[in-house]
Amino acid sequence: MSSYPPSLQTVVDELGRFPGVGPKSAQRIAFWLMRQPSEDVNRLSTAMTDMKANLSFCSQCCNFAETGDLCPLCSDDRRDQHVICVVESPPDVLAVERSRAFTGTYHVLHGLLNPLEGVTPDRLRIQELIKRLHGPVTEVILCFNANLEGDATAMYLSKLLQVPGLVVSQPANGLPVGGDLEFADDLTLSRAISGRRVLAD
Amino acid sequence: MSSYPPSLQTVVDELGRFPGVGPKSAQRIAFWLMRQPSEDVNRLSTAMTDMKANLSFCSQCCNFAETGDLCPLCSDDRRDQHVICVVESPPDVLAVERSRAFTGTYHVLHGLLNPLEGVTPDRLRIQELIKRLHGPVTEVILCFNANLEGDATAMYLSKLLQVPGLVVSQPANGLPVGGDLEFADDLTLSRAISGRRVLAD
Repeated sequence: MSSYPPSLQTVVDELGRFPGVGPKSAQRIAFWLMRQPSEDVNRLSTAMTDMKANLSFCSQCCNFAETGDLCPLCSDDRRDQHVICVVESPPDVLAVERSRAFTGTYHVLHGLLNPLEGVTPDRLRIQELIKRLHGPVTEVILCFNANLEGDATAMYLSKLLQVPGLVVSQPANGLPVGGDLEFADDLTLSRAISGRRVLAD
Repeated sequence: MSSYPPSLQTVVDELGRFPGVGPKSAQRIAFWLMRQPSEDVNRLSTAMTDMKANLSFCSQCCNFAETGDLCPLCSDDRRDQHVICVVESPPDVLAVERSRAFTGTYHVLHGLLNPLEGVTPDRLRIQELIKRLHGPVTEVILCFNANLEGDATAMYLSKLLQVPGLVVSQPANGLPVGGDLEFADDLTLSRAISGRRVLAD
C-alpha cells in the first residue's frame, strides 16, 4: 500500500485547495473528520452546499446577500444613500458598522489592487461602483487598510472617481486611541501631526 | 447589520471546528468557498460524506479500510503475519512502507499516550493489539516518533506485552543517513554511540 484509500485521498486533495491549508494540514483535518460522528460531517457538508445555493452578492453593494436582490443594509430606508463607504471585504463592513460612525451604504470591492499577485482593476468590483455614481451619491469614502495595497487602491480610485460634485475622502491616519506616543511608528506619528486638529483658535 | 448572513456564519462556525483552523482562517476559507464554482463546493461536500459512508477501520490493524472487513495490507497473503509494526497513525504506515524494510503487518494506535492532554491507554487501539497476540505473532516492533509521547507509549506497551515467546523491539536511534556529526544533537549522538554496530571483530 503506497497511498491512502481513494475516498480519503479525495478529501485530503480537496481540503488541500483551501487557502492557508497545506497537504499536512489537509491530512490532519481529514483524519479528524474520520473521527467525527457522521451527522457532524453531513451537517458541515450540507452547510457548504446550502451556502453556495442560498447566498449570492447584493446587486448594489456586492456584499454577501442571503436572498433576493439587495442586502439588508442596501434595502434599509434609514441608511443614507448619498454616501458610499468603499471597503475591501465583508468583514470590513462589520468593523465599520461596529464603530457606529457611519450611516450610509457600503460597496465591497472583494480585494485590493495588487498587480504582482494578479489583482488588476478588472478583478475588483469597480465597475459596479462606477454604475452607482449615476444615483444620488455625493461622497465616496475609501476605507482601506493603511498599507501598500490599500494606498494603491485609494490612489487609483481617487483618480477614477473625479466626477464634478463628488467628494472622495479617506479616514484620518493618526495615533490609535489608547496608544502610546512613545511606541507609535514614525509614519503614523508623522501623519498624526500633519493631520492635527485645531482645538482652540 | 452586525453579523454575516446565517448560511455563511454556519459554514464559518463549522470550519472553525477543524483542528488548526481558527475563526479568522475559517472566515477566509468560507469567503474562498463563496468565490468557487458551485460544482467544486458540491464535489468537496460529496467527497466528505462519501468518505464517512465508505471508509471505516480495518478490523485487524485499525488502519483505514475502504470496504469490507480487512485493509489491503492485512488481507495480503504475502505479508508476514508473525511480525506486527505498531505505529501512531496511518501516515506512519505509508512511511514504513516507503522504506521497504518491513514485510509484516501493522497496527495503528491512532495516537500516542499523553495523559496531560487526556490521551490515556483506553483512548488508543491497545485492546485490539492485545487480541492479535492470540494469533501467530512472534515479534512486535514499537515504531513511534522519538519524542516524549513516543517513548512513554513504547515503555507502557513493552511492559504490557510481556508475553512468553514474544519479542518486543524498537527501531534503532542514531545519526540520520546523510546527517552531519557536527550538527547532531547530544541525545541522538549518545544513542548512536551506545547502539554502535560492530563492523569487524
